[in-house]
Amino acid sequence: MGKLTDVRRSGGPRGGPGRQRSVISPALFSFSLGKDAALLPLTPAITEPFHGLQVRNHERIGRWEPVPAVPPTLAETRNLLEVYGRSWLGGASVDTAIAVVLDDEWELAGAANLRVDHQQRAAEFGCWLDPFFEGRGLARRSFVALVDHAFNGLRLDRVTTRATADNERSRAMIEKLGFVQEGVHRKAVYFADGRRDEISYAILSQEWAGGAGVSADGLSVLGAEKYP
Amino acid sequence: MGKLTDVRRSGGPRGGPGRQRSVISPALFSFSLGKDAALLPLTPAITEPFHGLQVRNHERIGRWEPVPAVPPTLAETRNLLEVYGRSWLGGASVDTAIAVVLDDEWELAGAANLRVDHQQRAAEFGCWLDPFFEGRGLARRSFVALVDHAFNGLRLDRVTTRATADNERSRAMIEKLGFVQEGVHRKAVYFADGRRDEISYAILSQEWAGGAGVSADGLSVLGAEKYP
Amino acid sequence: MGKLTDVRRSGGPRGGPGRQRSVISPALFSFSLGKDAALLPLTPAITEPFHGLQVRNHERIGRWEPVPAVPPTLAETRNLLEVYGRSWLGGASVDTAIAVVLDDEWELAGAANLRVDHQQRAAEFGCWLDPFFEGRGLARRSFVALVDHAFNGLRLDRVTTRATADNERSRAMIEKLGFVQEGVHRKAVYFADGRRDEISYAILSQEWAGGAGVSADGLSVLGAEKYP
Amino acid sequence: MGKLTDVRRSGGPRGGPGRQRSVISPALFSFSLGKDAALLPLTPAITEPFHGLQVRNHERIGRWEPVPAVPPTLAETRNLLEVYGRSWLGGASVDTAIAVVLDDEWELAGAANLRVDHQQRAAEFGCWLDPFFEGRGLARRSFVALVDHAFNGLRLDRVTTRATADNERSRAMIEKLGFVQEGVHRKAVYFADGRRDEISYAILSQEWAGGAGVSADGLSVLGAEKYP
Amino acid sequence: MGKLTDVRRSGGPRGGPGRQRSVISPALFSFSLGKDAALLPLTPAITEPFHGLQVRNHERIGRWEPVPAVPPTLAETRNLLEVYGRSWLGGASVDTAIAVVLDDEWELAGAANLRVDHQQRAAEFGCWLDPFFEGRGLARRSFVALVDHAFNGLRLDRVTTRATADNERSRAMIEKLGFVQEGVHRKAVYFADGRRDEISYAILSQEWAGGAGVSADGLSVLGAEKYP
Amino acid sequence: MGKLTDVRRSGGPRGGPGRQRSVISPALFSFSLGKDAALLPLTPAITEPFHGLQVRNHERIGRWEPVPAVPPTLAETRNLLEVYGRSWLGGASVDTAIAVVLDDEWELAGAANLRVDHQQRAAEFGCWLDPFFEGRGLARRSFVALVDHAFNGLRLDRVTTRATADNERSRAMIEKLGFVQEGVHRKAVYFADGRRDEISYAILSQEWAGGAGVSADGLSVLGAEKYP
Repeated sequence: MGKLTDVRRSGGPRGGPGRQRSVISPALFSFSLGKDAALLPLTPAITEPFHGLQVRNHERIGRWEPVPAVPPTLAETRNLLEVYGRSWLGGASVDTAIAVVLDDEWELAGAANLRVDHQQRAAEFGCWLDPFFEGRGLARRSFVALVDHAFNGLRLDRVTTRATADNERSRAMIEKLGFVQEGVHRKAVYFADGRRDEISYAILSQEWAGGAGVSADGLSVLGAEKYP
Repeated sequence: MGKLTDVRRSGGPRGGPGRQRSVISPALFSFSLGKDAALLPLTPAITEPFHGLQVRNHERIGRWEPVPAVPPTLAETRNLLEVYGRSWLGGASVDTAIAVVLDDEWELAGAANLRVDHQQRAAEFGCWLDPFFEGRGLARRSFVALVDHAFNGLRLDRVTTRATADNERSRAMIEKLGFVQEGVHRKAVYFADGRRDEISYAILSQEWAGGAGVSADGLSVLGAEKYP
Repeated sequence: MGKLTDVRRSGGPRGGPGRQRSVISPALFSFSLGKDAALLPLTPAITEPFHGLQVRNHERIGRWEPVPAVPPTLAETRNLLEVYGRSWLGGASVDTAIAVVLDDEWELAGAANLRVDHQQRAAEFGCWLDPFFEGRGLARRSFVALVDHAFNGLRLDRVTTRATADNERSRAMIEKLGFVQEGVHRKAVYFADGRRDEISYAILSQEWAGGAGVSADGLSVLGAEKYP
Repeated sequence: MGKLTDVRRSGGPRGGPGRQRSVISPALFSFSLGKDAALLPLTPAITEPFHGLQVRNHERIGRWEPVPAVPPTLAETRNLLEVYGRSWLGGASVDTAIAVVLDDEWELAGAANLRVDHQQRAAEFGCWLDPFFEGRGLARRSFVALVDHAFNGLRLDRVTTRATADNERSRAMIEKLGFVQEGVHRKAVYFADGRRDEISYAILSQEWAGGAGVSADGLSVLGAEKYP
Repeated sequence: MGKLTDVRRSGGPRGGPGRQRSVISPALFSFSLGKDAALLPLTPAITEPFHGLQVRNHERIGRWEPVPAVPPTLAETRNLLEVYGRSWLGGASVDTAIAVVLDDEWELAGAANLRVDHQQRAAEFGCWLDPFFEGRGLARRSFVALVDHAFNGLRLDRVTTRATADNERSRAMIEKLGFVQEGVHRKAVYFADGRRDEISYAILSQEWAGGAGVSADGLSVLGAEKYP
Repeated sequence: MGKLTDVRRSGGPRGGPGRQRSVISPALFSFSLGKDAALLPLTPAITEPFHGLQVRNHERIGRWEPVPAVPPTLAETRNLLEVYGRSWLGGASVDTAIAVVLDDEWELAGAANLRVDHQQRAAEFGCWLDPFFEGRGLARRSFVALVDHAFNGLRLDRVTTRATADNERSRAMIEKLGFVQEGVHRKAVYFADGRRDEISYAILSQEWAGGAGVSADGLSVLGAEKYP
């Protein structure tokens, strides 16, 4: 993780009879993304369902950001979530799972995070989503929620994000949220089939509409009830 | 912490002009206790405001449960919250801060927690509250929220709690929630001025009304919107 | 461990020709329980013989206190003994192996321990024994030795112990030593075949006869020569 | 550290009679930068002389990159060098001290480093120099040495570096070495007196002249004898 | 520690009215050195009395083995005893306190230890004693106990010890126990007032009389009852 | 490691067509042993080539110093090199790999180290070499380099080394360098086929010719250019 994957709809039928789900028990702590979705702390408590989600999306994530050749083992996922949890306790990152209500059950749909640089008062946003859950604005809602948290909760000055140059859909979403392109980094990302260019974006706290410009398309709810 | 302090109203006037407050920045993750209050993860992110709250309540907490002679230093509070955070990541406890909205700001009002024994599928509830915030049902709401989480989120079989024998107000609340007295432990708790008896209580999952009996006085909201 | 297993005699013949033994090299440090037995520090130095003892008693211990479905591996036993050893160094517990002289060799027969709560100046006693060594008063002697150490060595105020309600033999021994029943904890212990009630007991330092009442049946020796 | 400080000459007289020096014992391992200078491992072995150098340069470094308000304590410097050393052992960075021969003694003059991202096969270069040692090409020689090591020793694909937009001297040196400007990051760096823009640069392995283009001005020596 | 200090009697009167003592609570585990003395595990449980003993003997120990210029702080002693305890758990050493019964109380008198090299199946003995307790054969009894433990408990092949060349009293005792001088190490030990020669001694398991030759002067008791 | 293996030439043909090599990437830091060889930091960065070297020499090293029955696994070698690296950072040892230029490539040939005792201001030297690289004076050059570093870099007072009594070739080299035999340690070293005597040697800083006496046979180069 660490940047935006393409949220383009995948071609095939979604969620046929055999669709595997990452159902979770009710969490105590959450952040509402609206009536149908929430961000949850990404900790070892949800190792098993999150692991399933990761494994099912491993190949697909690898299209937009470099991943190891093989999916993680369950032990590696647990270790990763422990690292995320400790990093969160230490204030160095905010790692969240995106959860959705479906058929009266909560189910994991993806992940979104901030990496925080307190010395520079800045953070970097990243996100990925299972294709079954595309088209619901979840990436955008998570993005707004975490950028808002970076500026209003953590009192940072600047949020950045990155996308590979060929990830047009993510780049469109980033730009629509008001981020400014600041750099084109030649061959900056390693993929097994060749390095790719990467685009860097940033928004400053004074440029962030605080939900105003954004709320037009339904996220005002998020602003209003975001806490608690 | 680890059991219930008395929630009796303190005699003096509350919150005169000089009242010190533990105001916090908006947290990302929370659990709603209604429109005016929420539980937050008790982590190092809120070290400074929580430390202030602890120091102001140190003498008073010592009336109902044993505490060291002197209040903790800021470094000790930070260390404590790191321990709480790691314990939460490891699944061994759920430590929360009770936060209240006052004058459009979020302010810390107390703490509530579960200590979890996964081997026995059981947990123990504990709670304390700043006297300024008494009379709002916050201890009871936190209690209901965490017991509910123990049974429905963590899928445990049994929740216990304890109170010193002379802590009548807490004992009344515990009993009203349906907990059954199981033991009288002679001189079980050490205080500087002499050991005191302690009463142990428990409730089993099948005895827990799941918010039903409890919801009559306004906590149904908590049941309905508890997640997310 | 953490409470008393039943010391009832097992039905079958004891120690037939094929009986497996946990013979140990002479330890440096010990506590004499009389001419035929001693308590030893339970540390990684005796990992292999203690592991054998645990594995042979795994199913039987599971009758009186919950244990995992499968016996520990050697590595898990070593890790457990490291945890015990570090806990002892930190003052949080006293874990001992019960050793017996048989055919001029020292052999492990069981384990006895105290879990110490310095804040409350209290400790909890627990013990288990291989059935071959029942009938020698080893559980009682270990109990007396550790309770005496809790009051006279560690200067604690109170010692507790627990037994499942159906463990009549252990409960009789506990009561005979002067412990007072303080609670009946409904369904407090998880077993694979259903939860069971648990009885809690305690004795206060001023109630402990210091070996006097106890010494009548042969433990005066222990009092007299207990150190060194 | 993490980017280039300005190597502009400071105005005042250099090294008057009272100049403080960071003299070191001969190190075992080194990398020659020519007859008068070398890179050394930046480890706790040189805590005291390096600490002196840091403290003397604290205010000046703060002109080009953000530093804490007060210089580090000796214990903080030791801890920093331990972190550097462990990071080097783990392959995550290469931290070096720049040492110079002066009056037959070795003396610390600055620091240069690479932060390595093995997943992306990339590294970032940074450097700072005590003003007394400016004008000897030490920053440039260190830069060439470490970039060369990144490509030929570590087999990376890409090296980046950054400088604040107003650090013209460093930017000129970076560009002269063949690095390409890839981004202008608005208000990316926090300083106590206001955020500043930052310029990002990169060079790819196939663009690196391997010492050829560079060697013209004396660094061929470095290429030729760089190992051992 | 790590070798033998001189056990020569100090000139002055012993234990006048103002003598400071390191009285301890009864330990659980011990090794009897006879009716009046025992070895105890040297762990953080006895930090305070052992610290007092160390501080009182700091200057004197420094006559026979190098010590820091100032006595340790209480925190340093606690840390040292934690290191000793962990080393013992790991099998790398056996650190003991020598305790003596005086006026019906147990009091610390010195320390004795083995450093174990399992790869070479060897150990090195060291010991020091408060001068008040000289003349009771405590150093010799501790030596015999630990060498015996090295050969019969730990099954080692060889035990070594060292003394500075001018420490005639210790050397006489070492030689009387059957150790063979194997080397004279020139200027091997650093003291503030100049380096001194050191003599190395060893005994092999087959040379150790197992208490036989030694028992003549009262240590047979130790052999007979050494465990438990 | 920890003492000198015999550097006697092995009988068979060296380096036939199938000879396995431990080729390495250029290191940044090194210490020149002349035009054809250097010492390198022995860290996890060279785990794989060093592991190959160790495995190929396992049986042979076992002739002169005790080694485990089976060669280390790759994970064990990595762990060993991490231990070496941390020990070096902490100042407790200097572990180096001996590297040689062959066919324009750098290749590992053996290892040399110092174990440092700062309290005694002393160090112990050890070394082993792959037989293919014998006859080039590499053990002697490494020895001179590290002893020189001990006296002139680390400012120690004394360097020791050891060899089994039957290792005549190493002993000759040690003595030729000016070391003085100080002890014959009976059966001091454990081998699977029986314990062997060991000879201990030492040289004091004032006895070390600083390269002068040594330089006669070509090592003056080492003295002259040893740093950087």
